[in-house]
Amino acid sequence: MGRSVKTSARPMSASEFEKLFQEVSNWERWGPNDARGTLNYLSPSHVRAAAALVRSGRSVSLAIPINKVAGPDNANPAIHHMTVTYDTVWSHGEPAFSMDYLGCACHGDCHTHIDALCHIAYKGKLYNGKPVNSVTSQGAKIMDITAYAHGIVGRGVLLDIPRLRGVKWLEPGEAVTQDELEEAEKAEGVRLGEGDIFVFRTGHHRRRLELGAWNNGYDGEGKAGLDAASMRLLHERKVAAFLPDGDGETVPSNVEGVAYPIHALQIAAMGMACSDSLQFEELVKVCEEEHRWEFMIVAAPLRLPGGTGSLFNPIAIF
Amino acid sequence: MGRSVKTSARPMSASEFEKLFQEVSNWERWGPNDARGTLNYLSPSHVRAAAALVRSGRSVSLAIPINKVAGPDNANPAIHHMTVTYDTVWSHGEPAFSMDYLGCACHGDCHTHIDALCHIAYKGKLYNGKPVNSVTSQGAKIMDITAYAHGIVGRGVLLDIPRLRGVKWLEPGEAVTQDELEEAEKAEGVRLGEGDIFVFRTGHHRRRLELGAWNNGYDGEGKAGLDAASMRLLHERKVAAFLPDGDGETVPSNVEGVAYPIHALQIAAMGMACSDSLQFEELVKVCEEEHRWEFMIVAAPLRLPGGTGSLFNPIAIF
Amino acid sequence: MGRSVKTSARPMSASEFEKLFQEVSNWERWGPNDARGTLNYLSPSHVRAAAALVRSGRSVSLAIPINKVAGPDNANPAIHHMTVTYDTVWSHGEPAFSMDYLGCACHGDCHTHIDALCHIAYKGKLYNGKPVNSVTSQGAKIMDITAYAHGIVGRGVLLDIPRLRGVKWLEPGEAVTQDELEEAEKAEGVRLGEGDIFVFRTGHHRRRLELGAWNNGYDGEGKAGLDAASMRLLHERKVAAFLPDGDGETVPSNVEGVAYPIHALQIAAMGMACSDSLQFEELVKVCEEEHRWEFMIVAAPLRLPGGTGSLFNPIAIF
Amino acid sequence: MGRSVKTSARPMSASEFEKLFQEVSNWERWGPNDARGTLNYLSPSHVRAAAALVRSGRSVSLAIPINKVAGPDNANPAIHHMTVTYDTVWSHGEPAFSMDYLGCACHGDCHTHIDALCHIAYKGKLYNGKPVNSVTSQGAKIMDITAYAHGIVGRGVLLDIPRLRGVKWLEPGEAVTQDELEEAEKAEGVRLGEGDIFVFRTGHHRRRLELGAWNNGYDGEGKAGLDAASMRLLHERKVAAFLPDGDGETVPSNVEGVAYPIHALQIAAMGMACSDSLQFEELVKVCEEEHRWEFMIVAAPLRLPGGTGSLFNPIAIF
Repeated sequence: MGRSVKTSARPMSASEFEKLFQEVSNWERWGPNDARGTLNYLSPSHVRAAAALVRSGRSVSLAIPINKVAGPDNANPAIHHMTVTYDTVWSHGEPAFSMDYLGCACHGDCHTHIDALCHIAYKGKLYNGKPVNSVTSQGAKIMDITAYAHGIVGRGVLLDIPRLRGVKWLEPGEAVTQDELEEAEKAEGVRLGEGDIFVFRTGHHRRRLELGAWNNGYDGEGKAGLDAASMRLLHERKVAAFLPDGDGETVPSNVEGVAYPIHALQIAAMGMACSDSLQFEELVKVCEEEHRWEFMIVAAPLRLPGGTGSLFNPIAIF
Repeated sequence: MGRSVKTSARPMSASEFEKLFQEVSNWERWGPNDARGTLNYLSPSHVRAAAALVRSGRSVSLAIPINKVAGPDNANPAIHHMTVTYDTVWSHGEPAFSMDYLGCACHGDCHTHIDALCHIAYKGKLYNGKPVNSVTSQGAKIMDITAYAHGIVGRGVLLDIPRLRGVKWLEPGEAVTQDELEEAEKAEGVRLGEGDIFVFRTGHHRRRLELGAWNNGYDGEGKAGLDAASMRLLHERKVAAFLPDGDGETVPSNVEGVAYPIHALQIAAMGMACSDSLQFEELVKVCEEEHRWEFMIVAAPLRLPGGTGSLFNPIAIF
Repeated sequence: MGRSVKTSARPMSASEFEKLFQEVSNWERWGPNDARGTLNYLSPSHVRAAAALVRSGRSVSLAIPINKVAGPDNANPAIHHMTVTYDTVWSHGEPAFSMDYLGCACHGDCHTHIDALCHIAYKGKLYNGKPVNSVTSQGAKIMDITAYAHGIVGRGVLLDIPRLRGVKWLEPGEAVTQDELEEAEKAEGVRLGEGDIFVFRTGHHRRRLELGAWNNGYDGEGKAGLDAASMRLLHERKVAAFLPDGDGETVPSNVEGVAYPIHALQIAAMGMACSDSLQFEELVKVCEEEHRWEFMIVAAPLRLPGGTGSLFNPIAIF
Repeated sequence: MGRSVKTSARPMSASEFEKLFQEVSNWERWGPNDARGTLNYLSPSHVRAAAALVRSGRSVSLAIPINKVAGPDNANPAIHHMTVTYDTVWSHGEPAFSMDYLGCACHGDCHTHIDALCHIAYKGKLYNGKPVNSVTSQGAKIMDITAYAHGIVGRGVLLDIPRLRGVKWLEPGEAVTQDELEEAEKAEGVRLGEGDIFVFRTGHHRRRLELGAWNNGYDGEGKAGLDAASMRLLHERKVAAFLPDGDGETVPSNVEGVAYPIHALQIAAMGMACSDSLQFEELVKVCEEEHRWEFMIVAAPLRLPGGTGSLFNPIAIF
């Protein structure tokens, strides 16, 4: 492609970041006890509009298969144990059952999951200014993952940056700016709007599949994500939720003194329903075939009282 | 109410059961390597029709909150541990994260979950005649829960039996016959059809909430469910999936020598996508308010390779 | 038996308890960074003397089998999963392996375990006056269970109170006073001394075996244990470690405003190596046959960095 | 050192191995229902003799600290979660408790553990000719780890091969022959005899500490261990138990078609109480200081019904 792409964001000073944090903050917008944050933007009319996008009847998962093997981005592999196989004679007779057990961290770089608003603290405060001791060893007392119990149902809009750039994936450290997001909107003929679910693709998972997993943290190779300044777009457009491959962060970040500015802004400032570590390799095939980058999304965390997050399997419906 | 309700099913002999098993069997219907069973009935056109039911934009969870406390129907309580709270100073600096861990059996009487087709064996055979050694200590080699990875999306039809009977819940041991299911259809103005998701309410969870949990097995008080013969209705109507409170079984069963005939018929014979231990207390309120007993359902298991089931949180959308 | 037994202790006021706490405190006795507490009393010469007690060469476990079933005193049953059985073909060929997994709380009323000194805080302070924030979601920074990594090796002295009283077990709520401990010493011809491991039997586990488990907490039936004032004896005699069936506590306690005074005194004040939930049903048979109530003990926690306790299996050797 | 060391064993053909298996087999020696295997050699008189070795009163752990971090020899890291910290207000008031949870595989290359006799099958048979279906998804029905519940108490004899060779550790793939074991006996002035616990040091753990962990399997660098033929020595001498760093195996093995011959011979043929993955770095310091390579050992698995192994912390007492 002939376009010249800027793959890094302008550095942001600590004071600029503070200003941005205030600018995009939704603290008190929905009252002092709000637990839904930007999901407040997602009204029944948006749900109806999302359902109206279902035209072909295809559905596709946005989740990575649960990963049971330790690796450079999987320090805490899931535990999957068969607890009963058909070697067991049941006292009840027929039929026989086989059963299993799953143990897994609710967060992590290769377990598709959604974050609760209590998951992030910035300078000692959770979203809406709530104190960090709202989260104790007994769980989160407020803003836990059950705030999303009835599901996130709305219009998903995929901005596929590798498609825009004509590459297979973004390389670690590359950042996507607001300008580029708007460019992607134009290329795809979509526009993020109020109550939308922003599906953001860097090709992180495709890179994993093709090159193998890598350590994407500060002691590793890093990862591609968003320019912190692009949060202004999400704020202005009143985006309701965020579904990225990777986790939206550019590592290393472009913000002075803030390692993970996207989480700080999205969750602690804006109260956005955010998820991590999705995969869109199946989705992009369908988008290309359907030639559209908007679809219905239904995503629901497990109803885990006190939880800071949950594994989940979001479904896109065309 | 003036209607007289038959709350127990006619006893079924072992040979009648064998005949019924053959009658409703879908073995070989969709080929020798089929892993989707009755979900084959649920076509894209059904998905579109389901989405067209979204008129008010309300969504409601059908899952029970995850239960961390051992009890008479919860021998294996979920393990939910906070792994990081805000007492931790992160080497990366801001922001701070809190995190947790969930460990849980993939089946059980008070964990809302979906069964894979490999979960049940009848007389040494899985659905489609597959051998039981397809499930080993290393997981299921075939018909695991990932067969449903892209979600179950379709029309849900609630048959609310306590509503029909004018009671709060069915008592343990009571069975719902095909006739009563058809009576419920008429009372609600709905009809189960091809590709539908049958949402079956006995009030099991309401009884739990009001009277407390009880041991619903053969060494306990039992539970209310379906008459085994009613599987004919589901088979004839080409129902795609089954979402009950309780698990569909009447305990004690009305079948000679088969303790859990519904699982045997639905899963092993028919290859039906079945789930267990849902709750409809929030759903029925919405149904009454909307005065309709059909809605879109989106339900997705975790993508657990080799799994015999998965916790999930099915969402009804009106 | 003709003796009249006092089965309850004199009530102790809050101020008396404070005075007792100070009286038996070992804070600063072994320096500000001590992590071994009363194990400092257990010198190599005591180890040699303990080994000299080995005369018959019999060994016996003091641990309860690990309990995998939830019950009134087992809210958190152990998880024991077979992870590989012989249904698995190994790529390496011969031989084949079977394997398993154990998950368990490090404390609990029916898991034999040892407490680290960090396990208890009284009025906001750990043993030696250390701050409670020494224990975080990342584990204990000081006084963790690895302080006992090289084992507790010494002379065990069993005071068998049911034997003294001529009963099968003490009933919940009964307390054993210092006088009765001294009476038991005389009856058995032993005397607790410096560096000894005090093995204290109320018959708690025998009662479990014969009557079934019960809820031994404040919302249940309670349990038999020590009079708080008896800690003076342990302090004066310079006892090194404590191995009870039950956990030493009388519930309800005889101390105003302190629910579990024995843990507060033994661990937070004295820095004593304490364990919980042992069983002596096998031990007492050997003691009677050998006609002696002293023996060598070797007990070692798992080397769990940051741990507040550990399952263990203490061995008595005669 | 001037001695020339043979660091690899003579290759052994499949038929030679079969012959060796028969030669060292203890099947039927202690009856058809034996579960103690070579521990039958360890009589009370050996226990007494072991206790008589306690002269200085020092004790030392032979266990590796539990490893919570995934690595090349730790595919299944232990899970250690703080379940309660002092952020929690207890309804019972004082004192406060902190608690934790440990989940861990019962086997593995960097978790010090002991194997049950059911852990190994050779050509479809367990020790004593028992069928492999004695181990099911519900646990081992026979020869589980509770066979060792009352502890392994006896004389430990360390043969320190790196000391003999004048090296820091043996390199992966190096094998120790019977001749070299006998040479080590002479150098240390000890002799393995009936009922002894053979403590075998290759320096495996020292290499881990100095060079970092490595994949010691067939898809990795391998490990140092015993020549399969050396099992004759253990058999003739009636050794009761085996405590190695590493796990005794030389990888790659010197036996045609048998990847792990030591496990096959020790456990399946001989019924030996074997453990894996110990560390002797603390032990060797004490041995040098005491200038003796024999000591009392007390080692006890957790009492895990049905278990194929257990984490443990064996203690050497001088």
